[in-house]
Amino acid sequence: MLVRIAAHNAVTSTEIVLTNARTLGLDARAMSDGQGGMAIGIDGELPDGAWDVPGVISVLRKHKPYMLASRELRDARSVVRVGDVAIGGDEPVVMAGPCVIENERDTIEIARMVKEAGATMLRGGAFKPRSSPYAFQGLGEPGLQHLARAREITGLPVVTEVMEPDQVELVADYSDMLQIGARNMSNFPLLKRAGRAGKPVLLKRGFSATIDEWMMSAEYVLASGNPDVVLCERGIRSFDTSTRFTLDLNAVPLARELTHLPIVVDPSHGTGRRSLVERMSLAGLAAGADGLILEVHPNPDQALCDASQTITPETLQRIIRKGHALVQLLDGEPVTDVLTTLITA
Amino acid sequence: MLVRIAAHNAVTSTEIVLTNARTLGLDARAMSDGQGGMAIGIDGELPDGAWDVPGVISVLRKHKPYMLASRELRDARSVVRVGDVAIGGDEPVVMAGPCVIENERDTIEIARMVKEAGATMLRGGAFKPRSSPYAFQGLGEPGLQHLARAREITGLPVVTEVMEPDQVELVADYSDMLQIGARNMSNFPLLKRAGRAGKPVLLKRGFSATIDEWMMSAEYVLASGNPDVVLCERGIRSFDTSTRFTLDLNAVPLARELTHLPIVVDPSHGTGRRSLVERMSLAGLAAGADGLILEVHPNPDQALCDASQTITPETLQRIIRKGHALVQLLDGEPVTDVLTTLITA
Amino acid sequence: MLVRIAAHNAVTSTEIVLTNARTLGLDARAMSDGQGGMAIGIDGELPDGAWDVPGVISVLRKHKPYMLASRELRDARSVVRVGDVAIGGDEPVVMAGPCVIENERDTIEIARMVKEAGATMLRGGAFKPRSSPYAFQGLGEPGLQHLARAREITGLPVVTEVMEPDQVELVADYSDMLQIGARNMSNFPLLKRAGRAGKPVLLKRGFSATIDEWMMSAEYVLASGNPDVVLCERGIRSFDTSTRFTLDLNAVPLARELTHLPIVVDPSHGTGRRSLVERMSLAGLAAGADGLILEVHPNPDQALCDASQTITPETLQRIIRKGHALVQLLDGEPVTDVLTTLITA
Amino acid sequence: MLVRIAAHNAVTSTEIVLTNARTLGLDARAMSDGQGGMAIGIDGELPDGAWDVPGVISVLRKHKPYMLASRELRDARSVVRVGDVAIGGDEPVVMAGPCVIENERDTIEIARMVKEAGATMLRGGAFKPRSSPYAFQGLGEPGLQHLARAREITGLPVVTEVMEPDQVELVADYSDMLQIGARNMSNFPLLKRAGRAGKPVLLKRGFSATIDEWMMSAEYVLASGNPDVVLCERGIRSFDTSTRFTLDLNAVPLARELTHLPIVVDPSHGTGRRSLVERMSLAGLAAGADGLILEVHPNPDQALCDASQTITPETLQRIIRKGHALVQLLDGEPVTDVLTTLITA
Repeated sequence: MLVRIAAHNAVTSTEIVLTNARTLGLDARAMSDGQGGMAIGIDGELPDGAWDVPGVISVLRKHKPYMLASRELRDARSVVRVGDVAIGGDEPVVMAGPCVIENERDTIEIARMVKEAGATMLRGGAFKPRSSPYAFQGLGEPGLQHLARAREITGLPVVTEVMEPDQVELVADYSDMLQIGARNMSNFPLLKRAGRAGKPVLLKRGFSATIDEWMMSAEYVLASGNPDVVLCERGIRSFDTSTRFTLDLNAVPLARELTHLPIVVDPSHGTGRRSLVERMSLAGLAAGADGLILEVHPNPDQALCDASQTITPETLQRIIRKGHALVQLLDGEPVTDVLTTLITA
Repeated sequence: MLVRIAAHNAVTSTEIVLTNARTLGLDARAMSDGQGGMAIGIDGELPDGAWDVPGVISVLRKHKPYMLASRELRDARSVVRVGDVAIGGDEPVVMAGPCVIENERDTIEIARMVKEAGATMLRGGAFKPRSSPYAFQGLGEPGLQHLARAREITGLPVVTEVMEPDQVELVADYSDMLQIGARNMSNFPLLKRAGRAGKPVLLKRGFSATIDEWMMSAEYVLASGNPDVVLCERGIRSFDTSTRFTLDLNAVPLARELTHLPIVVDPSHGTGRRSLVERMSLAGLAAGADGLILEVHPNPDQALCDASQTITPETLQRIIRKGHALVQLLDGEPVTDVLTTLITA
Repeated sequence: MLVRIAAHNAVTSTEIVLTNARTLGLDARAMSDGQGGMAIGIDGELPDGAWDVPGVISVLRKHKPYMLASRELRDARSVVRVGDVAIGGDEPVVMAGPCVIENERDTIEIARMVKEAGATMLRGGAFKPRSSPYAFQGLGEPGLQHLARAREITGLPVVTEVMEPDQVELVADYSDMLQIGARNMSNFPLLKRAGRAGKPVLLKRGFSATIDEWMMSAEYVLASGNPDVVLCERGIRSFDTSTRFTLDLNAVPLARELTHLPIVVDPSHGTGRRSLVERMSLAGLAAGADGLILEVHPNPDQALCDASQTITPETLQRIIRKGHALVQLLDGEPVTDVLTTLITA
Repeated sequence: MLVRIAAHNAVTSTEIVLTNARTLGLDARAMSDGQGGMAIGIDGELPDGAWDVPGVISVLRKHKPYMLASRELRDARSVVRVGDVAIGGDEPVVMAGPCVIENERDTIEIARMVKEAGATMLRGGAFKPRSSPYAFQGLGEPGLQHLARAREITGLPVVTEVMEPDQVELVADYSDMLQIGARNMSNFPLLKRAGRAGKPVLLKRGFSATIDEWMMSAEYVLASGNPDVVLCERGIRSFDTSTRFTLDLNAVPLARELTHLPIVVDPSHGTGRRSLVERMSLAGLAAGADGLILEVHPNPDQALCDASQTITPETLQRIIRKGHALVQLLDGEPVTDVLTTLITA
């Protein structure tokens, strides 16, 4: 059941409904509705009296199963803040960095390069899910330390993957945003723990997850008390193996219809081919994405993993310049700003 | 075997190689290489002397199976002309119109509307492939006549589907471009006949065709003597049924790498959802498409078919204006032109 | 609308309903209901009086869109006769032969071999759909003549593919059953023509066709007046490329629930790997298939096409012996028969 | 690198190669080769002298990435023992029970029923992965206790799912075999922990995992020191939604070619439709599966989860009787045994 309450009655009325629900043993959670009021999601049905409070705007008995993630609860777009960076705001956010953290010096060097190219967040793997037990599985905690050091120096907030519930606190200590990888989208114990870690979560879509399943996984994080979830489309598995995965950009405008959560796109994994990354990055932004996550290395062919999909800092810079101009163009920003961008690009 | 011959020797040397190949019973076909010279595709191996002519730039013994469609033969982008319209040139081409031709009056009205909105070609089905034998299968020849009448009045060239070999001449008589639908991408007798009809061909990708299979189908048309093929990505079948199909934009930059043929995108069929068409159209152009094909109706909900994916002329106009600006922006046109577009948009 | 009429009133009442429907301009077709009475499928709604005839058992206003193919019309299993062979009866039917007809002598030799191995029908391609325009496309009419000659000698009825509407009569002249290939499952003009050719049709499932789309394609043939359709599951396209296609045996028991038409399985194309054909043949029969279609060649590695999925006559014989025993076992035949089979196998 | 050593030198020579490998810092693991000798998998290359020991049969430098799971290491079929039950032996093993453990009484009742029907292992979920955070997630430890109690009473060994690394020891304490669910096939921390728990592992295939990825996940368990892995095919995700998943029986004979590990089939999840379970169970055994895992409930429609795919004990009994007879028939058991089975069935 979803209950919306108007701005002037929000505090008291919300309190009453939450108390009534919990007294009846029902899961209930409140969230700003994005228009000044409050929205309450209740996992079950309140009896008539229990929600009949001042300021009720609407009561929805039939709703999406992902009630906290749904636009039915909050018909506005959420902005998720990671340090100074706002994901879901006016500017596209670009997270960039190496596939895997190799050592401190290179991590800092790449961080500087991607910052100079215009990226506003640093990505990089310390714990790496690898198909083979014999493959390099990442540096672990030392990798996290290198990332933290690179942040110290560049000021870029850090997003990095966490693979198991017991590592959540460790990864949260060193990083600014927890990445849940595609293989773990339905790792529910991990989602619950990430939901209680006090850090924003970047939730990648499983490569054969339906849009609804993806929303339900976001709901796990939200229902664990963490409102700061950013979705990430990273390619689905299809019959066509000419690309490693099939970046599903349809998911971008569709997700925007279904949820208030921001969404970014990962054309590196989504295509697996370096030569397609630039065009698919721009296409992702044109489709409405709030940002990009990209694998970047000064010498892509020498990267320890994902070499074939890694771009150079030069390509990154071009993507960011064109991407900003494109977003300004499509979102109807004043023409003069676009002009400035174009002239300086 | 692929043989490239330099500009100044092109005519005579090409003639010799073709003659030698055909004397040996081999299929051989020449094409401009896009750089002033000629390129010859031979289905088999010439003995050493047979290609040793003045001006030979390169000989490729190992090449893609779709040798005429491949960039190995012609490392430039082809432009396909349909009436006054150039597909694959600087401007994105927009083909728009109803799913199915219903009557003359409406056809003319819609043609006028899409022209006013900025479309440069008219689409509409006279022969319709329908899953059910009991569903309306299109008007047939009268539908073609309505399309021809609408062209007469608006000047818009017409593209319309042909479903069987025996109809090719009929459809070619009335229209300017033959559409081969997704279900017929591997209808080889139809491809061969369309290749001999003297009209450009719009070749839709089958909804579970790999990129290579699509190129091979284009090769059927090219090998039948018709160089004017435009590819159309229209959505693939995936496990996710939240959209009717999954528009595969990865195919756009990938096709541009593999072939010199132009490529357009069909977000109407590719998504099956009206609300996603605008964003996916823009994403398609950002991905590098040479144009769009869109289902448009003044009252989408009353369209005889595909209502749920049909947009209004107003949406079409917005897509075209934004789309032109976006293409100018990304392809590095002078800033002042973009400015003009933005101001007038 | 579906109308069922009891046995004793069948003839007259059916006549009346058909006449009433057609007078109203509705498509209507009658079929034995498999229980002595008649079933009438009408594409539309008859007014109340128009179907109120003696002997009406039931009237169904909501039904599957494939009303003639559905078990709602005929709740029994149809038997399709091809020469002396009954597909859908007690015995599994095995159609075997080369991928492509190469010459008369080999065709006759293979026909003798598969007959000796226990096959009851001969398969072989005279017209071959090939991805490449440069690949061997089959012998055409001479190939049909070789097939006809092999039938004359062995007595095995022949099934062979027809690829375009204009060839239907030609292929029907030489063969006993028309095969519609996977690529042509939605070639509606071809389905209609095949429906009027007076020969049974083997309808392969498109490799990305849903079960419902497959049933609708069968409906095209049935609605064209041909009740003799046999379905063939031949593998779907999935993300996993370790087999050429993914033979979808779920389709077998599911099709048996949905339709009265017989169904056979093609493990040769369905797996693309010789070593999997025997096990998947047996699995297909265990799943409930009425028969198999298999590519067989005395020297599989020298077959002109599909070498990697072609089995030897020895493997064929083993499949047939085990297959017969398995069907007797599962369908509850008297134990002594099974015993006999086992002893002689 | 794979090294095979003959029987009479096995102990000493194996010891030497292992020591040499480990001295060089390489991962190395020995396993019986199924023919009396030993096989050693080394993650890397030994220098020439280091493997030149008495009794070396073969050295393979190029091999599958899943070297311990591969038949290249052990060209025989492994038998995994769970209590008294041998999976991979002559008899098909049937694991049956409710989707989710509801309470002690029902668990015992169902256990008795499935035992009587012929099942030799009990399945049932105490920890349940659910798409929705609001859905019932299983009883947890009390559920494990009910299972243990049912085992005590019936003697049936228990297999149950474990969802996170920290639960592995708990689940191992109560059960006889650890199930890794499809959603966790690539949960590498969980695989590693399960590999060290001292209990056999049932590894379900992820619903969009390739065969190679599945083998690599098995390799994680094997490389962690646990040789007792049983694979389970449980349906893949395809474009066709007429069944919940698409049980991929091709995977059965293919897995038998690639690995020595036993494989069972789950037609309950693989189809999601009760009416298809019997036929697909038999097809799975005909395809070569070593057993089945089935959801059973005395009143399927009242089961707390997966009601639509749950069968009755009566259906289970029929599947087991027919399944045993079918396996005897196909694997060439003496006819008299089959006869006995048929007569008593």
